[in-house]
Amino acid sequence: MIERYARPEMTAIWSPETKFRIWFEIEAHATMALAEIGVVPREAAQIVWEKGSAATFDVARIDAIEREVKHDVIAFLTHLAEIVGPEARFVHQGMTSSDVLDTCFNVQLTRAADLLLADLDALLAALERRAFEYKLTPTIGRSHGIHAEPTTFGLKLAQAYAEFDRCRSRLVAARAEIATCAISGAVGTFANIDPRVEEYVAEKLGLTPEPVSTQVIPRDRHAMFFATLGVIASSIERLATEVRHLQRSEVLEAEEYFSPGQKGSSAMPHKRNPVLTENLTGLARMVRSYALPAMENVALWHERDISHSSVERMIGPDATVTLDFALARLTGVMDKLVVYPETMQNNLDRLGGLVHSQRVLLALTQKGVSREDSYRLVQRNAMPVWRGEGDFLTLLKADPEVSAKMSDAEIAECFDLGYHLKQVDTIFTRVFGRA
Amino acid sequence: MIERYARPEMTAIWSPETKFRIWFEIEAHATMALAEIGVVPREAAQIVWEKGSAATFDVARIDAIEREVKHDVIAFLTHLAEIVGPEARFVHQGMTSSDVLDTCFNVQLTRAADLLLADLDALLAALERRAFEYKLTPTIGRSHGIHAEPTTFGLKLAQAYAEFDRCRSRLVAARAEIATCAISGAVGTFANIDPRVEEYVAEKLGLTPEPVSTQVIPRDRHAMFFATLGVIASSIERLATEVRHLQRSEVLEAEEYFSPGQKGSSAMPHKRNPVLTENLTGLARMVRSYALPAMENVALWHERDISHSSVERMIGPDATVTLDFALARLTGVMDKLVVYPETMQNNLDRLGGLVHSQRVLLALTQKGVSREDSYRLVQRNAMPVWRGEGDFLTLLKADPEVSAKMSDAEIAECFDLGYHLKQVDTIFTRVFGRA
Amino acid sequence: MIERYARPEMTAIWSPETKFRIWFEIEAHATMALAEIGVVPREAAQIVWEKGSAATFDVARIDAIEREVKHDVIAFLTHLAEIVGPEARFVHQGMTSSDVLDTCFNVQLTRAADLLLADLDALLAALERRAFEYKLTPTIGRSHGIHAEPTTFGLKLAQAYAEFDRCRSRLVAARAEIATCAISGAVGTFANIDPRVEEYVAEKLGLTPEPVSTQVIPRDRHAMFFATLGVIASSIERLATEVRHLQRSEVLEAEEYFSPGQKGSSAMPHKRNPVLTENLTGLARMVRSYALPAMENVALWHERDISHSSVERMIGPDATVTLDFALARLTGVMDKLVVYPETMQNNLDRLGGLVHSQRVLLALTQKGVSREDSYRLVQRNAMPVWRGEGDFLTLLKADPEVSAKMSDAEIAECFDLGYHLKQVDTIFTRVFGRA
Amino acid sequence: MIERYARPEMTAIWSPETKFRIWFEIEAHATMALAEIGVVPREAAQIVWEKGSAATFDVARIDAIEREVKHDVIAFLTHLAEIVGPEARFVHQGMTSSDVLDTCFNVQLTRAADLLLADLDALLAALERRAFEYKLTPTIGRSHGIHAEPTTFGLKLAQAYAEFDRCRSRLVAARAEIATCAISGAVGTFANIDPRVEEYVAEKLGLTPEPVSTQVIPRDRHAMFFATLGVIASSIERLATEVRHLQRSEVLEAEEYFSPGQKGSSAMPHKRNPVLTENLTGLARMVRSYALPAMENVALWHERDISHSSVERMIGPDATVTLDFALARLTGVMDKLVVYPETMQNNLDRLGGLVHSQRVLLALTQKGVSREDSYRLVQRNAMPVWRGEGDFLTLLKADPEVSAKMSDAEIAECFDLGYHLKQVDTIFTRVFGRA
Repeated sequence: MIERYARPEMTAIWSPETKFRIWFEIEAHATMALAEIGVVPREAAQIVWEKGSAATFDVARIDAIEREVKHDVIAFLTHLAEIVGPEARFVHQGMTSSDVLDTCFNVQLTRAADLLLADLDALLAALERRAFEYKLTPTIGRSHGIHAEPTTFGLKLAQAYAEFDRCRSRLVAARAEIATCAISGAVGTFANIDPRVEEYVAEKLGLTPEPVSTQVIPRDRHAMFFATLGVIASSIERLATEVRHLQRSEVLEAEEYFSPGQKGSSAMPHKRNPVLTENLTGLARMVRSYALPAMENVALWHERDISHSSVERMIGPDATVTLDFALARLTGVMDKLVVYPETMQNNLDRLGGLVHSQRVLLALTQKGVSREDSYRLVQRNAMPVWRGEGDFLTLLKADPEVSAKMSDAEIAECFDLGYHLKQVDTIFTRVFGRA
Repeated sequence: MIERYARPEMTAIWSPETKFRIWFEIEAHATMALAEIGVVPREAAQIVWEKGSAATFDVARIDAIEREVKHDVIAFLTHLAEIVGPEARFVHQGMTSSDVLDTCFNVQLTRAADLLLADLDALLAALERRAFEYKLTPTIGRSHGIHAEPTTFGLKLAQAYAEFDRCRSRLVAARAEIATCAISGAVGTFANIDPRVEEYVAEKLGLTPEPVSTQVIPRDRHAMFFATLGVIASSIERLATEVRHLQRSEVLEAEEYFSPGQKGSSAMPHKRNPVLTENLTGLARMVRSYALPAMENVALWHERDISHSSVERMIGPDATVTLDFALARLTGVMDKLVVYPETMQNNLDRLGGLVHSQRVLLALTQKGVSREDSYRLVQRNAMPVWRGEGDFLTLLKADPEVSAKMSDAEIAECFDLGYHLKQVDTIFTRVFGRA
Repeated sequence: MIERYARPEMTAIWSPETKFRIWFEIEAHATMALAEIGVVPREAAQIVWEKGSAATFDVARIDAIEREVKHDVIAFLTHLAEIVGPEARFVHQGMTSSDVLDTCFNVQLTRAADLLLADLDALLAALERRAFEYKLTPTIGRSHGIHAEPTTFGLKLAQAYAEFDRCRSRLVAARAEIATCAISGAVGTFANIDPRVEEYVAEKLGLTPEPVSTQVIPRDRHAMFFATLGVIASSIERLATEVRHLQRSEVLEAEEYFSPGQKGSSAMPHKRNPVLTENLTGLARMVRSYALPAMENVALWHERDISHSSVERMIGPDATVTLDFALARLTGVMDKLVVYPETMQNNLDRLGGLVHSQRVLLALTQKGVSREDSYRLVQRNAMPVWRGEGDFLTLLKADPEVSAKMSDAEIAECFDLGYHLKQVDTIFTRVFGRA
Repeated sequence: MIERYARPEMTAIWSPETKFRIWFEIEAHATMALAEIGVVPREAAQIVWEKGSAATFDVARIDAIEREVKHDVIAFLTHLAEIVGPEARFVHQGMTSSDVLDTCFNVQLTRAADLLLADLDALLAALERRAFEYKLTPTIGRSHGIHAEPTTFGLKLAQAYAEFDRCRSRLVAARAEIATCAISGAVGTFANIDPRVEEYVAEKLGLTPEPVSTQVIPRDRHAMFFATLGVIASSIERLATEVRHLQRSEVLEAEEYFSPGQKGSSAMPHKRNPVLTENLTGLARMVRSYALPAMENVALWHERDISHSSVERMIGPDATVTLDFALARLTGVMDKLVVYPETMQNNLDRLGGLVHSQRVLLALTQKGVSREDSYRLVQRNAMPVWRGEGDFLTLLKADPEVSAKMSDAEIAECFDLGYHLKQVDTIFTRVFGRA
């Protein structure tokens, strides 16, 4: 995570201030729960809540204490005691540091997931708007980078919409994975703390109690979370790659918006480069890479070891901040994408009608020609066109074996663009629920 | 995927015979659907179905054709035509190779997922049985590899159960991700094929129509599928690592079953090594590694490129076969695991009562000692025990600052093991729905 | 590793026959070394060598024994004893299985490295030949997929040559990493075997003795080896991606060779797809992915655990066979690549002279115009050209601010293509040592 | 990279101040080189050098300009012009941004490599010192976590030394990979800049000219660099894992140094956890993960795209800062490691002499017993010991089949510890060049 690729709302989730505030809330809720079940005096719990809520935690002071005791939660509790006074002794009773750390991390991840869901909603809205805008704008469909058959630019965007809609569902599932709370003590047996405390805190924080924890919340949950972010990043890469291709000099069917003051190149003043989507390609590589250490974190030793911690201090912010930035950037790109329908049409016409070859092939088989013969007939007329030696329609009409089976009108009918657009509404209805 | 780590049922899914059979079914169902909507003669579709169903496809023959035409689906269709006769010309009408290939791959993956789900069920059954067997068997809980507080061996297994139960849910979701069918033509516009064909084939194969495909079924689905397998593999690694730790010479609380004829080491005849779980650790690394190329596969160019294909020819079998083998092996390990409750008790007693230090700490604070002072008192009596210089209980009783606050009986009460087991039923009920 | 992407010579290295042959050589050399230092009778060592050399090891028989004893080396030694007779008792004295397994794996890897080095030599030869063939063929250089300035097709190939030449040096270093031998006993102390045995065997097998082994040869060596293969694969992906771009319908400056009988698409007969380089892109993803489990293999427990073994049984063949195939395929692609210099020239002319904008910018600054003003002048004439509204040279001449500083001839001189080619010989000399 | 796991010297390399200083040096050296070959006035180059050298670049000002022009190098040049005055127009002539950016990145990486080499030297020194300290301290060697045969603690450290010595050599090679300079213009043709400028700047900065660049320095170099860091990190993980194992409650042969004020656990005051080495395990996962996006960066499109940039802005600092911190932390751990030779001896004696089983096996075969029979004899006496039913030496002496072949004295001789230490000097001489 670097400032250049970070947005303030997501970054704030990972600030020490936010972290200590969440720690406090966990501790104070737990103390209150202990009061509810009669373990600590209710007034003490009240004082903890009130004094802590009113206070601003002094990050520098906590850091100073940590340098001495070499333990972050103890440092925080020491500082809290400075604020709360004698009632602080009722705080953290029967709890272990991980109860605080793991629950806090999950609170941060759920908040991060909420921001990412909002990012996805914005992206989906932009994609839907642009998809309908270009629903029937013909453009060449390409497989292997080679012209295949016509499609529409709206269909390209509908595919992107459907893909990010799936990403949204995955993120909802991933959020549920890590929306758990553990207040279960040193090895998860609730020896020193009543399970009702966990239930109370979980409810206050909008989490679910972890069914069985072992000091730590099990890290398969987090592995699944970060793996899901990696998949979302891969979808970002796909759409970014599409834009990069469309903006190539030879294709130029669409372009990232280029603001008036912007300079494309220090050396070549004419250049307008797809730098945003190239940037997104790189960011996707990063978010994807964080899935691996998250998976390696699963196999903690026995009831817990702390090897996951350094990983999570990094990938927690790195993955969520970078993905948040990337989604917002992609939304901007798609929202303002400059689209050139005319160039699309020109490119479509570029191969001299070859894009209609399959339709000719089918028409021939329907006239009773074998598939193998049809293929041969079509290919022998396609190849000269490919070499720039003529127009596909003309050549077909002039081929006696073809004209023996199909009239000129029948051949020409194969070249109708509308033929390819007739199911656009069907697909739009599948994707958007409307056409 | 290598034979050593493969089981026949999963391997069979990836045989050429199975693949061609599925290709045939897709083609034959599609031809039947075309007959239903009046595009091809019903009798022709019937003949295709009957002759193809009765035939055994000749893999060597198809391979020979492919070497000539350098295209696998065309090779298959050519061979099918040899079997079916002239009606073969109605097959594959308006379809593109990817319609067959992608739908087939998803059929294979769903079948693989079904086997993996059965594997998980078997593993869950073994874990549940053993968890109840050792529900109240005390054992030391360890954080950082250091003795922490008592837990039970059943709780360790309950945690594993809960983790694999989550893995099961994830796999169900992952299966749904890739249970789709696409019969949408060259760039997914249904230009040459009616969407009803896709719906018909999907239903016959137990799949869902892909809402919008672009010759290919989008690969974010597969990325999610293989990422999920990677997470499951990581959970395997966790449980395997636990067994490896328990079997260490110095711990020896449990052992992999060692069959009579087995030799542990060519050089050291006494050795009984946790080779199965070490092996599982390595297999987990492999399954996890396949998530990455699956994610890189997402960003295909434009409507498709074929870079994903070589990856999937490898990781399709490699990931599913290896994971199937690993789950079955882990089930065997857990089912036959030799458990030594006595050693567990001996290890538990090893630290001279230090494992009860937190309880003493809590008791002191409840007597009104500040948390900081309590910590100091406990630590100064714990350190000599750690150095082997005495027994914790004795030292505490002899400490005047401690005895000023707690009677000997109160101190002794802190050393009661039952204290740690009182919530086992609560946790079992959360995990298994019964205790 | 699958047959489709495998070549026989590399595959043979990983066959059980080769493995058992190498095992035998290690054991027989070691026995001979033991004879040299007087530990076993020389005649016995001679008999072992002769009978073993003459024999064909029965893979099925060894497998059957292994199923019983569950230990591969013991199974082999048992079979060897069946062949050699009573003298077999002198075999494997003081050795441990890993002495055989690890040394064998390194022999296999060095042989694999030798094949890969030969592959790289063939690729370098093809690249050099084609680089000189197109040394001065002008083509547009592209940054961000956007036309930048002219370069030559030979320079593109020279860059690829330099990159694979670096890969070759890396592979030489990687080969040295794993060209070690360990015959050091159960924990590497040479307690039961003299270090001279290790030296003897190492020399016979063309290896170096491992300075300190601990039953296993340390796996950082193998991590480095497989990471290096991953880097080479990434360079394959780069060149493959270049070809894929060049073959795009809109670019079409080069094409993979398309054999007469080949069919590009089952549906679209005109298509000629860059399937080989797309395939290489996927294979690169696979080879790259194997670096990860190889790195995870490094941290074996204490003197060794066997978790690396299953990983290596897979990635040993998978990585080397796939990379061998990929290098050979890439060599074929580059050797037969169909190049279209005319299209290159057409594409170069496509942007109406904009590719010369930097040269105009420089000329203006050399006439005393500030960099900022020059940039502004160039950009305001470039933008209309970009929009298809005119020719860059004409517009510049018509711009009064430009013509106030430069004569028409001076402006025109900026559009000379030769200007960009003047250092080609310099670069070729750097890369090939000749121009 | 986060502050918690960062050291100031390495962090400084990645500060904007350092970056702009390097940018300035590249630009100023290049201007001077242009003066040398007569392209710009020598006095102008002198003024650029002097004014720039004396100035402090205003990072905030440059950022402000960048926000407007959206191009970092142009922003810097604009600011430089504010400092230098009219002579600034001679700066950057014929260069492209990447000339500055790529060369700067390589300068930063070589400086980072130098720090890492110094880190490795410090680690090697610590390992050598401790290795000699415990050269002959007996400890049990473990394979599969199971007691195998005796070794010495010094040998464990010698192995670590040898491994990090290899890492050092790899890093030297990796440093050479990225110690190159490119000043070759927009597509690397030197069209607007003389190759002598590149040579001049390279020499001034201690770099080698990149033989053929294409606006960018090829990223296979960086992939190799970061992959090497990943391998080094994996070796850190290995040694860290060893310490974690040794500190386990049941093993406790060594411990991380635990400072007086330190608290091990907020809940369990007696605990002393191997938190530093657990932390290193996590950091290793992170450094390793950065190898992947670095490899994906290789396949830039055509002469360059900028997708690598965001990746490198992150992994450049992240990988080097984290690895620097990890190496320094590991050095501290090994330097201050508390070693318990007595516990080592106790653990060694734990298995009732079973660790000598192989020696007994060998002695029996040397007495003419077949390998299979020897194995059987040893195993039948080992198994009761394993079950805690007796002492290996006593049982062997009582076994009539054994005593028929070996006298009691001969059997006892097999239990001599010195036997296992006799080659320690040989190994030390191999590793350290002295014993």
